Amino acid sequence: MPLRSDWSSTTCPIARSADVLADPWVLVILRELFSGRTRFDQLRDATGAADSVLARRLRTMTEAGLLTRDEDPRSGYRLTDAGSETLPILHAYARFSKVTEPDDDYGLSVSCGRCGEAAASVDWCAHCSAPLDVDSTRWTRRSMGGTPFDLASVGAGTGAGARA
Amino acid sequence: MPLRSDWSSTTCPIARSADVLADPWVLVILRELFSGRTRFDQLRDATGAADSVLARRLRTMTEAGLLTRDEDPRSGYRLTDAGSETLPILHAYARFSKVTEPDDDYGLSVSCGRCGEAAASVDWCAHCSAPLDVDSTRWTRRSMGGTPFDLASVGAGTGAGARA
Repeated sequence: MPLRSDWSSTTCPIARSADVLADPWVLVILRELFSGRTRFDQLRDATGAADSVLARRLRTMTEAGLLTRDEDPRSGYRLTDAGSETLPILHAYARFSKVTEPDDDYGLSVSCGRCGEAAASVDWCAHCSAPLDVDSTRWTRRSMGGTPFDLASVGAGTGAGARA
Repeated sequence: MPLRSDWSSTTCPIARSADVLADPWVLVILRELFSGRTRFDQLRDATGAADSVLARRLRTMTEAGLLTRDEDPRSGYRLTDAGSETLPILHAYARFSKVTEPDDDYGLSVSCGRCGEAAASVDWCAHCSAPLDVDSTRWTRRSMGGTPFDLASVGAGTGAGARA
């Protein structure tokens, strides 16, 4: 991780979360897990991370309780409940890009899984008041064909189906 | 910055924002700017960053358009409008800590600047529907005496007063 010191026991909740999560590779690995990619090779190909970079991040994320490794090694990694709670952090980063560079053409869009409206907030649907959590959020990614998908349905280990 | 590659032109809005902002030091520097600390020595003392670490981050943040340096060198740095848009990212990190470790005693709390209710969302007051932006958000920090303060009023260069 990029940290020069261990902030996991600081009392500031920003610094505390940042200890593991304020890392670009961790964020794009989470993005791929939410998108249904769970195996090492899938994560490597989708993120472009070197094997060593990816392995180190997956180990840190597992130690931090964000991921578990499936008993079946072919299944790879899945997000824990705590890992699923990182979704608003990803949405906040995505939203910053869109707010500050609104004319750009972005490859990932967030919408409400319940009503389908484009997300105007990081964690809450302003249209139908559903929380934009892993069970009620839809992403559209151009690199994945541009068809909207429910995060809960992708088998990323984040939704009800994968938790069962 | 901790990045191994330049992601500023990627089409993924998460990776694009992460290029500069997914860095623990950048996040705590932003935290202090939102809290009204603007001078190099104030930022250094409040974050615990080494001079070289802090100088490098301030340079990168300025180049990225998040900060400007005041003409009066005694005033230090102030957030640009784009820099102020990072607030939901900080709130998302803070919220992650509180959601995943709810029993801990945290040194920073977020509430609505309009109605005073504790924030239940990253960027929106569920109680009075005000946006939790820099003009309508209140923080309470134990390390700063525990008295709630409006971000817009601290003279951090983020609020109406400082922009004027």
